[in-house]
Amino acid sequence: MTQIGSNLQIDPERLWDTIHETAKFGATPKGGVRRLTLGPEDKQVRDWFRARCEAAGLEVHVDALGSMFGLRKGRDMSRAPIGLGSHLDTQPTGGKFDGVLGTLAALEVVRTLNDAGIETEAPICICNWTNEEGSRFAPAMMASAAYVGDFTTEDILSRRDAAGVSVGEALDSIGYRGDRPVGTQKFSGFVELHIEQGPILEAENKTIGVVDSGQGVLWYDGRITGFESHAGTTPMPLRRDALATLAEIVLAMEAIANRHGPKAVGTVGEAVIANPSRNVIPGEIAFTMDCRSAEAAIMDALDRDLRAAIAAIAARRKVEVTLDLVWRKPPTHFDPRLVDAVESAAKMLGLSHRRITSGAGHDACNLNTVMPAAMVFVPCKDGVSHNELEDASKADCAAGANVLMHTVLALAGVAS
Amino acid sequence: MTQIGSNLQIDPERLWDTIHETAKFGATPKGGVRRLTLGPEDKQVRDWFRARCEAAGLEVHVDALGSMFGLRKGRDMSRAPIGLGSHLDTQPTGGKFDGVLGTLAALEVVRTLNDAGIETEAPICICNWTNEEGSRFAPAMMASAAYVGDFTTEDILSRRDAAGVSVGEALDSIGYRGDRPVGTQKFSGFVELHIEQGPILEAENKTIGVVDSGQGVLWYDGRITGFESHAGTTPMPLRRDALATLAEIVLAMEAIANRHGPKAVGTVGEAVIANPSRNVIPGEIAFTMDCRSAEAAIMDALDRDLRAAIAAIAARRKVEVTLDLVWRKPPTHFDPRLVDAVESAAKMLGLSHRRITSGAGHDACNLNTVMPAAMVFVPCKDGVSHNELEDASKADCAAGANVLMHTVLALAGVAS
Repeated sequence: MTQIGSNLQIDPERLWDTIHETAKFGATPKGGVRRLTLGPEDKQVRDWFRARCEAAGLEVHVDALGSMFGLRKGRDMSRAPIGLGSHLDTQPTGGKFDGVLGTLAALEVVRTLNDAGIETEAPICICNWTNEEGSRFAPAMMASAAYVGDFTTEDILSRRDAAGVSVGEALDSIGYRGDRPVGTQKFSGFVELHIEQGPILEAENKTIGVVDSGQGVLWYDGRITGFESHAGTTPMPLRRDALATLAEIVLAMEAIANRHGPKAVGTVGEAVIANPSRNVIPGEIAFTMDCRSAEAAIMDALDRDLRAAIAAIAARRKVEVTLDLVWRKPPTHFDPRLVDAVESAAKMLGLSHRRITSGAGHDACNLNTVMPAAMVFVPCKDGVSHNELEDASKADCAAGANVLMHTVLALAGVAS
Repeated sequence: MTQIGSNLQIDPERLWDTIHETAKFGATPKGGVRRLTLGPEDKQVRDWFRARCEAAGLEVHVDALGSMFGLRKGRDMSRAPIGLGSHLDTQPTGGKFDGVLGTLAALEVVRTLNDAGIETEAPICICNWTNEEGSRFAPAMMASAAYVGDFTTEDILSRRDAAGVSVGEALDSIGYRGDRPVGTQKFSGFVELHIEQGPILEAENKTIGVVDSGQGVLWYDGRITGFESHAGTTPMPLRRDALATLAEIVLAMEAIANRHGPKAVGTVGEAVIANPSRNVIPGEIAFTMDCRSAEAAIMDALDRDLRAAIAAIAARRKVEVTLDLVWRKPPTHFDPRLVDAVESAAKMLGLSHRRITSGAGHDACNLNTVMPAAMVFVPCKDGVSHNELEDASKADCAAGANVLMHTVLALAGVAS
């Protein structure tokens, strides 16, 4: 097997240009991207991606949940390919890099190998997973979750967005309900490059995060039922105010996460008052909650403490509060051999690096349950993500893509 | 002038039937009414009301803001009429009685006088004021406010609802932009019957509230600007969470209202997270706040304490909070002669009664600034209003309508 040294590097300008070219699809006035999964802008970027993959000689296919796979043949087609990639959908007010960097870096790896005339032993396959973000349809990372068997394809197809549109209908409307059954594209390993989406690498001035673990996630749907009444005539002591109840829950959750910190976070991201009016005491509120920790014991403690706090608040305020756990993802421990491969690539390229835990969930965390997987992080400005101000440097993006490429080459092998 | 005794009574069944007949226009599954001002259901009830007024011999005209006036001639047409009535619009999840009782009781008074062949000295004029509720267009009670000169007609016509539709466009779309300039229908006094919308009459087992004052109102529009970021990767101490900020503001407002209680109330009725997503820390929230007291000094204290609390919260959480006072209505002190007339009518009819402060704002509070005005309250079940469960008894509705009728007869005089 041929050894490829650090002189093989991706083209930083080409990678940077593709990132900014796709940022047009759903561009927001503040410089971010709004590209909700399976919407019209997602179709635009998918069409663009398919065309570029085909131009790079890849055989593109799409599975029944719209995930896209671009296969580059290897010398030994009896081996399952090494997968690399991420996702192209964004948050409602997302940035240019989250998911996009990992997907386009995978394309850049293919282009670089093509330009250098390098054939790998195992094939490689670049991926764009459907609905990583979870902001239009729940759960997040649903396509990779279905891939590993956490959900059936039918279940995911029936999930609906806030407007009542199902995943299946959305796929049909943009022409991306593919013919490959979910899970049939096999891999011998998967590597995902991503911005850190947190402040650690930047604070420590490290270029590469060698991701060895990922936080577990608890997602809750909550509902508060108090009593709607007139804002002017209902004495304060007689109120059963759903918003004041939510206020106490939000602050209790914050205090609980702080108490279990620094290895815990908790967020109420959505809260909708039913029939709001400025002179009516809110009677009913739906909300969601997201709690995370890299330690299973802390996740259990968060759940227990939250439920106790909410029960006490509800009883004191004479309101009803329901809290349904709609998703529980255990912490991820990535494959040690692949984590070592990422670390070796960073070392070989002379890049500063450290082991790190992923604060966010990623498709690689799902895939790790059925195949060896690992991730590469690069810093993002001020640790900001899921925000139109999300930013990363051209040099860091290129460094991450180079680590991705050399990790994939080490795993797939280079044909002599 | 002829004296009319307590033997003249309205028809309780006819009044009750009209209340339930109009409750069909915008009826909700839970037994309430959703009849937003100037919407299609409001057109239905307005058409119904116009037809019934004309059938009762009234001359109906509509002013430039859609307020409806049904004039019953008096013997002395040189006198300005005595006005009576209320409003027919409701909250988004409102009840069958708020506003409706006062408007349909006014119609019932006319029908009763017609049946008895009674001519009044001064004319009387029954009114349906546009947009008392304020839940589609702000401010509440805008038509009576424009009537008394607090706003120009043009200003009110340009106000827009959440969908961007202006009052002028809404009036045109239902055909209720009338030809009478606002304020040209003069009155020599105005009496409004209404459910209490609070718990006092029921608790004290009194049938009639002789309303001598009304709470002042402070309406605020607020906006919190924190920073949107990733729910999984942003450590708790680095967050600038707009929802956690709102939570503190809601609880601070509650504490301040309690501290100034029992003569103060405060409510956050609306709160909307910009671009909500379950895995994004809320970065921006718009909210509204409603604070009330019958004492001007307490209103000043509420405003001062709220602003101080919000400034401290914003500074500690490193977020920006703006709080704009969009409406300030001073407390109302109703005309003593008309208040006495209401009390005399209740006494003459042998009904239990007490003086009371209105917790809610009413068109009569606006009108009181340019003419003598007063109100009659009847109990509502559990003090509940602005709620689909709002309820009042047939006997109490009839008692209130009788007090209204005898007050109006005392003010207008009966032709001999």
